[in-house]
Amino acid sequence: MSFTDLLNTNFVHWVDSARAPESDIVISSRVRLARNLRRIPFPHMLDENTGKKCVEDIKNAWKNSTETRGMNIVFFNQIPLIDRQILVEKHLISPNHAQSDSNYRGVLVNDVGSIAIMINEEDHLRIQCILPGLQMEEASKRAQKIDDDLENNLDYAFNEKRGYLTSCPTNVGTGMRASVMLHLPGITISGQTNRIFQNINQLGMTIRGLYGEGTEIVGNFYQLSNQVTLGLTEEDIIYNLTSIARQIVEQERIIREKLKVQMQYQIEDRIGRAYGIITNAKVITSNEALSLLSDVRLGVNLGIIKDIKSFTLNELIVAIRPAHLQKRTGKEMTAVERDITRAEVIKEKLNAAGSK
Amino acid sequence: MSFTDLLNTNFVHWVDSARAPESDIVISSRVRLARNLRRIPFPHMLDENTGKKCVEDIKNAWKNSTETRGMNIVFFNQIPLIDRQILVEKHLISPNHAQSDSNYRGVLVNDVGSIAIMINEEDHLRIQCILPGLQMEEASKRAQKIDDDLENNLDYAFNEKRGYLTSCPTNVGTGMRASVMLHLPGITISGQTNRIFQNINQLGMTIRGLYGEGTEIVGNFYQLSNQVTLGLTEEDIIYNLTSIARQIVEQERIIREKLKVQMQYQIEDRIGRAYGIITNAKVITSNEALSLLSDVRLGVNLGIIKDIKSFTLNELIVAIRPAHLQKRTGKEMTAVERDITRAEVIKEKLNAAGSK
Repeated sequence: MSFTDLLNTNFVHWVDSARAPESDIVISSRVRLARNLRRIPFPHMLDENTGKKCVEDIKNAWKNSTETRGMNIVFFNQIPLIDRQILVEKHLISPNHAQSDSNYRGVLVNDVGSIAIMINEEDHLRIQCILPGLQMEEASKRAQKIDDDLENNLDYAFNEKRGYLTSCPTNVGTGMRASVMLHLPGITISGQTNRIFQNINQLGMTIRGLYGEGTEIVGNFYQLSNQVTLGLTEEDIIYNLTSIARQIVEQERIIREKLKVQMQYQIEDRIGRAYGIITNAKVITSNEALSLLSDVRLGVNLGIIKDIKSFTLNELIVAIRPAHLQKRTGKEMTAVERDITRAEVIKEKLNAAGSK
Repeated sequence: MSFTDLLNTNFVHWVDSARAPESDIVISSRVRLARNLRRIPFPHMLDENTGKKCVEDIKNAWKNSTETRGMNIVFFNQIPLIDRQILVEKHLISPNHAQSDSNYRGVLVNDVGSIAIMINEEDHLRIQCILPGLQMEEASKRAQKIDDDLENNLDYAFNEKRGYLTSCPTNVGTGMRASVMLHLPGITISGQTNRIFQNINQLGMTIRGLYGEGTEIVGNFYQLSNQVTLGLTEEDIIYNLTSIARQIVEQERIIREKLKVQMQYQIEDRIGRAYGIITNAKVITSNEALSLLSDVRLGVNLGIIKDIKSFTLNELIVAIRPAHLQKRTGKEMTAVERDITRAEVIKEKLNAAGSK
């Protein structure tokens, strides 16, 4: 695995869920630490000179930190938009960040894509660790280790009272945003989202669609994350998020078992049809594909569909997206051409994966 | 093949379309001759005595006619409702006829079910010949041969001026009703039914759903039949119906080829999805099954789906109906149980038939 592979295959560390905890329901765990350098303007205020200075400091820290020196550092004037979109689709950088082709915006990323440090996105550094399944503590530990190491070589903007200073006030304090991506077909199908999610905001958490803020819920994938970064320790944030995630996972498991028993034929029918459609369609939109993959995933988890690995299903979440499809065909495509290629990719992966 | 087989399998002659003309579009051809006996009241006016007399005359003719003596004669007090429904689902008797368990109502039918003579339905005799594909002339020839043979041994109600007298005045004259069952997905999908069917009534024909008068169009199956029995010879009726059927077949072929070229992906997608759903559903209603089978049949005809024979698809038109499903499980079922069994039957037949 190399950075080139990361850009040219469907692989990214979090799809490899085989031995990850709770991976039947939790797709991935992410911890993100926002950090800024003292005496350098925030990214949106950078000019040619301060940008250059900022990048020099970061490059210097990269080379001198044991944790990061083996990683790839890339600035967005060096790679085309398609490659930046690939990184977005792998959840390694934000869509906004990918829009820039600036020579001082970029990413510091390891080969497998479990660590991705955005450079000059909203903050000078956003250190992210993304792992498969429910592994908040491990993700936090790894992110903090890198953070500590970089801090040895960088002068962070830190205030004794407010903690880490950030470009957006909602990140001030720990600068930590922690999130889990959950697959909740049981809760959704049974119409219990309102009941189960109702207290989440009061607990300082928020739940959103697969692609973050403002995105709709597609394929019964949800992102649960903390909203409060101030007044809590990093340990509190991770502990709270993990507890709530565990409760939701528990609820989802109970509902799935109930559905399986009480609505056996309806569920088997729904799953069978989804599998039938997704392996036989010739044209398929991204949203429809995610919805059908959601049902297929439920079928795999309930043992109704055999021989398809959750690895394959996770990989497909990435592989069906536009930039990955474009990489495959090697050319820009119309929406319809993408829908056709998407159907081919899905058929290929699921047929290779096994049979029902 | 015996009468018992006819009652206990999905087979009936018209499903065996392998070498039948135009069988990609024409499912079956039927000719029905309405005949009544002189000096015996029409069936709805029969009482115990006249009914007995009528049956005796018919039995006598059956034994003495070369054409019919090898056939099975059954009265509806001798077979249970389920068996009568089986005959309905094979298109050998009418639904109304099956409702009766009278000892003078019944059917005279050959082992393969290409000839079915309803006894005391609306008329004393309704001599039917049903063949696969477009074979109106052959069906007419066979029906008339039986008719001639029976007439040697029966005194038909016939009037020089009006022709054969029938219970319902719309059948007076030749007493001939001829019909073809057509599968017209191209005309239907492309929204051209109105254009193509607009002159049919003026030509003395009518077009209806699969199960005859008053039934909706399901699965793009249509029944084209003559409405006028008086003032035309038998040859005219058969010639006219065959000509119009051929014109419709021609139109359907042209539209299919156009669809295949101009809407390649949409058509392949539609067919692929139909195949995927029908081979993976766990619960399926009769109407949905017919709609999906219609798409699968189109796929087979266009060469998009391989290795499924039209025999299998024709057999499924019969096999998915309630009485045939009940025969299979050997018990009465709820609608949902039937939907489950129907899905099993389809899966079994199509998986046995081949792969895509």
